[in-house]
Amino acid sequence: MNVWGKRDDMVVHEREPFNAEPPRIALAGLPETPVDTFYGRNHGPVPDIDAAAWRLRVDGLVERVLELSLDDLRARFHAAEVVATLECAGNRRAGLTEVRDIPGEAAWGAGAIATARWSGVRLADVLAAAGPAQQARHIAFAAPDVSRLADPPQPYGGSIPVGKALGPEVLLAWSMNGRPLPRVHGGPVRVVVPGWIGARSVKWLTGITAQDQPSGNYFQATAYRVLPADADPSKAGPGEGISLGPLALNCAVLSPEDGACLPSGPTEITGYALAGDDRTVARVDVSLDGGGSWVQAELDEAPGPWVWQHWRTRLTLGPGAVEVTARAWDCTAAAMPESPAQLWNPKGYANNSWDRVRLTCR
Amino acid sequence: MNVWGKRDDMVVHEREPFNAEPPRIALAGLPETPVDTFYGRNHGPVPDIDAAAWRLRVDGLVERVLELSLDDLRARFHAAEVVATLECAGNRRAGLTEVRDIPGEAAWGAGAIATARWSGVRLADVLAAAGPAQQARHIAFAAPDVSRLADPPQPYGGSIPVGKALGPEVLLAWSMNGRPLPRVHGGPVRVVVPGWIGARSVKWLTGITAQDQPSGNYFQATAYRVLPADADPSKAGPGEGISLGPLALNCAVLSPEDGACLPSGPTEITGYALAGDDRTVARVDVSLDGGGSWVQAELDEAPGPWVWQHWRTRLTLGPGAVEVTARAWDCTAAAMPESPAQLWNPKGYANNSWDRVRLTCR
Repeated sequence: MNVWGKRDDMVVHEREPFNAEPPRIALAGLPETPVDTFYGRNHGPVPDIDAAAWRLRVDGLVERVLELSLDDLRARFHAAEVVATLECAGNRRAGLTEVRDIPGEAAWGAGAIATARWSGVRLADVLAAAGPAQQARHIAFAAPDVSRLADPPQPYGGSIPVGKALGPEVLLAWSMNGRPLPRVHGGPVRVVVPGWIGARSVKWLTGITAQDQPSGNYFQATAYRVLPADADPSKAGPGEGISLGPLALNCAVLSPEDGACLPSGPTEITGYALAGDDRTVARVDVSLDGGGSWVQAELDEAPGPWVWQHWRTRLTLGPGAVEVTARAWDCTAAAMPESPAQLWNPKGYANNSWDRVRLTCR
Repeated sequence: MNVWGKRDDMVVHEREPFNAEPPRIALAGLPETPVDTFYGRNHGPVPDIDAAAWRLRVDGLVERVLELSLDDLRARFHAAEVVATLECAGNRRAGLTEVRDIPGEAAWGAGAIATARWSGVRLADVLAAAGPAQQARHIAFAAPDVSRLADPPQPYGGSIPVGKALGPEVLLAWSMNGRPLPRVHGGPVRVVVPGWIGARSVKWLTGITAQDQPSGNYFQATAYRVLPADADPSKAGPGEGISLGPLALNCAVLSPEDGACLPSGPTEITGYALAGDDRTVARVDVSLDGGGSWVQAELDEAPGPWVWQHWRTRLTLGPGAVEVTARAWDCTAAAMPESPAQLWNPKGYANNSWDRVRLTCR
């Protein structure tokens, strides 16, 4: 067992803060991801919070400031459950670092994504109890994990627009896959914002503030933004670049594993695809000739609107070096772009270029 | 004056059915498009409907079948207005036909898009008066224009999911830019479905049916679908391919005009961008070296959620042959893909690859 109860073959990008993803193959064929295989993405030390002493404060542009214990949440609100895929905005950054170095950011593979069954209460119900004012446009989340990566160092935070916050899919979750939410995944209580970048699903939640502006927290105002390729991120001020929120269309090959040596012949190729927020995946294509020709993969039905879809196809590989390329299309017929070079950005977010794995077939 | 009151320099792809678009330059710098410049896209002869005799029937999975005259619509429902961009799913098909021929489909340039101020009543209000049943999942529209392009020949039709149909932005419109809706644009009454392909904004509306399935009309079940590149469209049956609905992210250069000869030196480059349905445009880039490097354009604020955004930048051109390339990014940081070859599909829909205009600078 690795640190934080993760599987032994986890790829640990950093021990402190803890940043780790499973190998691709560990995600293959599993609609829901075991907790020991679920990626960890942190910006500071993992807090140790006593669930009995934990309190959530709801304030800002509300009629009534609330201070809620875990028992209060359970007693005062209806239980809610959602199966949701979380994806880090840095998922597949490795494809961008192959183009050009991205100093200070982990070269995540395709495993900074995973799906769990989350249980708790609806954020909308808790907000309704506080009575948000008309002027409330954004719902900000506060947490106690102080990040030294932020400038200046500060606790982690972020916000989502009130329209998203009131969606029935947005939870304050204390359970993951039927077990109490593990400390490393934000226990006792975290936000789960399905369809949005993982950075908005704030862990170790202690505060909710209704406000008229997006969060001024470093991780909303300065980080998690796509800057133009020629920008200097150390000089980018708050508000610059594209502020990430809803997830972009993406897909990846999960099996065979990148770099695998395997026998030539008919081989099942599988992977995941997701379209982000209010879009759906319409098609996944696989190519063995770098995009010269494509085969349409068989796409599993989505078990719910907030969940990745697995796909599969059987192709005859090798012998020799084989590159498998995958791309997805969404319901608007928008397709993933070809080249990571064209998406390269100084902090390395949102790489949704074609996914490629390189194999050797005996 | 050209046919149907259109400007003289309209590019007429077909006279019957009438299919025409303005040159790019005619759309430049205008947030709203004059009616004489608004593209026309038809599948059959333009009907001649007496507004006084016109009736709209609302039926299917509803509590009350309605039969409404234009006076009924005006008297029984609140007036509603929306400024909305309509875009044909075939806009920019010319970029695909450059890759490979697309028989039987017009090679639209970048002008099969336009913006108008539409007035009428909300579809949601009319549906509420009919009382849609729980099982109603789709709202289908019927029109009297019989198309010989359909197999078998049939009146034009289509549907949208009930969730979209209930949006306050979806209108039954009898006015365009403050004047009665011209016959060629669907008068006396058409549907306007902002954020969706123009094909769903059914003209000469005579019937609305609440049903549990999408429309079985040829133009929904068989046409307006993105088939795989190797499919034979003459053999594709109903339900195959990606059924188009919400618009994909797109942008184009409007000025200078494609093919223009102009003096070298600092030149203003302008164009439009739109993200479709529930997305927003986050950035537009312009390149003079085919995507080797990009300059970020200045993006106008959107006057409303359903409207294209114009953009501009000033670059020094020439002398000699110059290619101007433009691409847009949406709020998920998804970017328009580079190559039309990778988007080529047998009916030539949804080309949202980088837009290019070729200039000669003296």
